[in-house]
Amino acid sequence: MMAILGDNRYGKAEVRVVRVDRSSEPHTLSDWNVSVSLAGDMREVHLSGANDRVLPTDTQKNTVYALAQQLGAVEPEVFALTLARHFVDRQAGISRARVQLHSYGWTAVGPHSLVRSGAEVRTVTVLHDEQSGSWVVGGLRELTLLNTTDSEFWGFARDEFTTLAETTDRILATSVEARWRFRNADCNWAAAYARARQALVDAFVSTYSYSLQQTLYAMGCRVLAEVPEACEVRLALPNKHHFLVDLQPFGQPNDNEVYLAADRPYGLIEGQVLADDAPDAGPAWP
Amino acid sequence: MMAILGDNRYGKAEVRVVRVDRSSEPHTLSDWNVSVSLAGDMREVHLSGANDRVLPTDTQKNTVYALAQQLGAVEPEVFALTLARHFVDRQAGISRARVQLHSYGWTAVGPHSLVRSGAEVRTVTVLHDEQSGSWVVGGLRELTLLNTTDSEFWGFARDEFTTLAETTDRILATSVEARWRFRNADCNWAAAYARARQALVDAFVSTYSYSLQQTLYAMGCRVLAEVPEACEVRLALPNKHHFLVDLQPFGQPNDNEVYLAADRPYGLIEGQVLADDAPDAGPAWP
Amino acid sequence: MMAILGDNRYGKAEVRVVRVDRSSEPHTLSDWNVSVSLAGDMREVHLSGANDRVLPTDTQKNTVYALAQQLGAVEPEVFALTLARHFVDRQAGISRARVQLHSYGWTAVGPHSLVRSGAEVRTVTVLHDEQSGSWVVGGLRELTLLNTTDSEFWGFARDEFTTLAETTDRILATSVEARWRFRNADCNWAAAYARARQALVDAFVSTYSYSLQQTLYAMGCRVLAEVPEACEVRLALPNKHHFLVDLQPFGQPNDNEVYLAADRPYGLIEGQVLADDAPDAGPAWP
Amino acid sequence: MMAILGDNRYGKAEVRVVRVDRSSEPHTLSDWNVSVSLAGDMREVHLSGANDRVLPTDTQKNTVYALAQQLGAVEPEVFALTLARHFVDRQAGISRARVQLHSYGWTAVGPHSLVRSGAEVRTVTVLHDEQSGSWVVGGLRELTLLNTTDSEFWGFARDEFTTLAETTDRILATSVEARWRFRNADCNWAAAYARARQALVDAFVSTYSYSLQQTLYAMGCRVLAEVPEACEVRLALPNKHHFLVDLQPFGQPNDNEVYLAADRPYGLIEGQVLADDAPDAGPAWP
Repeated sequence: MMAILGDNRYGKAEVRVVRVDRSSEPHTLSDWNVSVSLAGDMREVHLSGANDRVLPTDTQKNTVYALAQQLGAVEPEVFALTLARHFVDRQAGISRARVQLHSYGWTAVGPHSLVRSGAEVRTVTVLHDEQSGSWVVGGLRELTLLNTTDSEFWGFARDEFTTLAETTDRILATSVEARWRFRNADCNWAAAYARARQALVDAFVSTYSYSLQQTLYAMGCRVLAEVPEACEVRLALPNKHHFLVDLQPFGQPNDNEVYLAADRPYGLIEGQVLADDAPDAGPAWP
Repeated sequence: MMAILGDNRYGKAEVRVVRVDRSSEPHTLSDWNVSVSLAGDMREVHLSGANDRVLPTDTQKNTVYALAQQLGAVEPEVFALTLARHFVDRQAGISRARVQLHSYGWTAVGPHSLVRSGAEVRTVTVLHDEQSGSWVVGGLRELTLLNTTDSEFWGFARDEFTTLAETTDRILATSVEARWRFRNADCNWAAAYARARQALVDAFVSTYSYSLQQTLYAMGCRVLAEVPEACEVRLALPNKHHFLVDLQPFGQPNDNEVYLAADRPYGLIEGQVLADDAPDAGPAWP
Repeated sequence: MMAILGDNRYGKAEVRVVRVDRSSEPHTLSDWNVSVSLAGDMREVHLSGANDRVLPTDTQKNTVYALAQQLGAVEPEVFALTLARHFVDRQAGISRARVQLHSYGWTAVGPHSLVRSGAEVRTVTVLHDEQSGSWVVGGLRELTLLNTTDSEFWGFARDEFTTLAETTDRILATSVEARWRFRNADCNWAAAYARARQALVDAFVSTYSYSLQQTLYAMGCRVLAEVPEACEVRLALPNKHHFLVDLQPFGQPNDNEVYLAADRPYGLIEGQVLADDAPDAGPAWP
Repeated sequence: MMAILGDNRYGKAEVRVVRVDRSSEPHTLSDWNVSVSLAGDMREVHLSGANDRVLPTDTQKNTVYALAQQLGAVEPEVFALTLARHFVDRQAGISRARVQLHSYGWTAVGPHSLVRSGAEVRTVTVLHDEQSGSWVVGGLRELTLLNTTDSEFWGFARDEFTTLAETTDRILATSVEARWRFRNADCNWAAAYARARQALVDAFVSTYSYSLQQTLYAMGCRVLAEVPEACEVRLALPNKHHFLVDLQPFGQPNDNEVYLAADRPYGLIEGQVLADDAPDAGPAWP
């Protein structure tokens, strides 16, 4: 048996960069966590430790800060695209760069004061490949939604280990992780993000749900409908169980009022919704 | 040497209870994490394992759920007071109960749909003692605030290990943990909380700061001014350092624009501000 | 544009099961975190919410506990294989099951007492597909290794953003995440795990390193050499930077003695090493 | 109402310092997380922002690194004592310093290679006060212990919310947080730590337990017996519940074999055990 080197990549993860835009009041912030991963012909460094094709991850970190200054106030997708192309276009031996970016939200509370919003994180993943070009995946995570009613779960398959009672009225709660693949690397990114986020909320709110899968599919369809620039949506929805507490031992009613919010285990529903004319995804997804 | 038993207490920590109020639309949630800690004459259980004075922590958990149903839609301070008194008043051998409660915020996005706000957590600590009565401490945590300017730091003490440069313009950012002691166990709790939170934000925003200590003191004073029901404020303010990145090696300016948001280490400023007529704190603080 | 449903799966995540083996002293524990994910023809539930092909995730949880009792003391790979096959073989509409399992280590400190070891977590991922059969990937994570010397980094590529100094003696530290694909679903699992773990440690310790990539490749090769039952290794190695602190401003030497252990950002080196006769991976990898 | 400044302190938290001792093989590591908190007459900086008495927290961080080099290979208690006295002795206006230190364990796997042990963290808290001198509290945390048997719980108090069944055989598991106050600031620190840790394990293992309170008290007494240099022990023991899974619905026995390891809520038992000749604790405890 001979060992051979397979796929490989390297980079700097979790570069925390904050850029202040003071051009008008209230001041605004770009508060980002940026991770870079580069690939190319890196055979030598693995086999012998020869680093001449290895741009240090420290340099990648420096590049994040330098580009943040050069680019000024841009949408995170533009930043990630520029950063990914920078490495592929200028570094011999690097044929592919992936940039992942998390963007944290802040709200103005004064002309130069902000409060961290604390809600969902906007995500961007860009892949730039010297052959196939640029691919952009937008997204969000930690958008926690809950319906107090209009959720049922019954008629499910049963086996000898099934003890779950059917229900025609339950709490449905999830922490949305959603990603949507753009058709092109050119878009009104801010507007597309706003519409995608709203579509996720609207579909969750308005779907009378018989299963979280049904809600997932509705959310994916709504994003495609509201964001025609996107051609594919991937969703991961944990079912954050809220169990109705049994108060009968205490002689008390519990008319869908008092719940136990459970941590583990949780259901996890994952799915993909595509436009029927979606182009091939190529290397877009990690 | 003989060993003797000193202070002790026991209870159930982190009971996650969610109560839905469906009495009007939009539905609202009480989403709480409740911890109970009881003390009294518990000598026997420590020495011999005799449990006859030990109300099980499982029962304490049950009590949280049962009271949530009985009390209906109440402010968290009322819930914590009722719960603490319940144990002291009814359980032989329990002379003191402490209840700590974290309350998570949700915002309506439909008649029966909500999104988790994700921002600060409201906190309540109640102590009820059969001798000294009830004590209420309100508070919040994870309120992250940032000023992009109006913060200086210079003229500080120096020794042989001092290398920090003085600055007349820096980012000032913190994640506020604040607690305020109420004079009485009776108050318009919701209004007091809203005024305290606003006071913290307003003081942070409006203080031209020469040190985080100065800002802390201003925040404490403002809470006392806006919430006369409170007589003491305790604050813990991490200095969430944002370091200006040195872009000179790349020939680029950095006119207070691009920052590195650091994780560790961080400054930590802690202080107490009291009304000059504050009554003794007794056992109010943990 | 029409929306179409793409890949999807669902299951119960993070079922925490502990099984005590009391058959001999010292007693031993299987302390596992088990996640199940099922796929098959789930079109209807997404489109209309019809659940008749949906075995509840609650049932999946029950099945974990029931099988833990039925199977008795088995290696985690055997448990995961049995669990995955259970769902595919017996549930109409389920054609593929993935089971992920984390196993936590405990050490005997008495005939029926144990202390949690706290070190690396053993991981197992099994996929069973009704067409292609069973696939087993072993692994570990959170194995934190450090060499105090015998690590250099120089001769790297440079651009205008490169400021890193070359070094011929640095600390090299990483938290190993390794996974190895087995050729067959039948093996002496415990022995293979022990050899793989030892191979990772030995290769890290004995490699005089000019780059973390070189160390990664050596680790992968060593696993393949010591565990011929495996045909592919995937490694993710964060470079846990230890920066030599500059004590010159204080007139002190720092002869590779005092370091700052950094959190973020960190280098991240990822790579795959294959046996030249490795069969196709099929659906083995998540 | 006038606002007045109460207690206050400030410092640098979580300075991560790693010191390599290369004086013999295998090399050893001091891997510490150090937090400093200083107090004194800090009225001016709170009221007006005048920083002339404020030694920057950045300087405190530098001092940690400089002392790590100056002191060489010392026990963490010696380091913390030296650091605390440094600030009080040399900085006008600082009358009290508290140093908290977490020490992480590593095990040699080669002459200059180590693996992180991952088990309990050793803790040190030192307070040095210009009036009352030096106080040392040793400790540990995250020492997770489990007995598979020899634990009962019955005969407890009951009320209308009690549903818990009595048991004469249960799993008892906890994650020990223990702190012990030393009589003097001079001791064989390494030996005392080893004896204290062993005493905690031995008492947990050898106590046939009717309640976790009883085990706690036994653990405290054992530390006092084995470490006469200590005069007081404080313990916080979460009851990490392991619930026997009900397999009856599946027609399966569960003879204390298969358990659900729960996360939240958990019991929390806290207590203090003192030597009868323990001197007053002064400002030793945070």
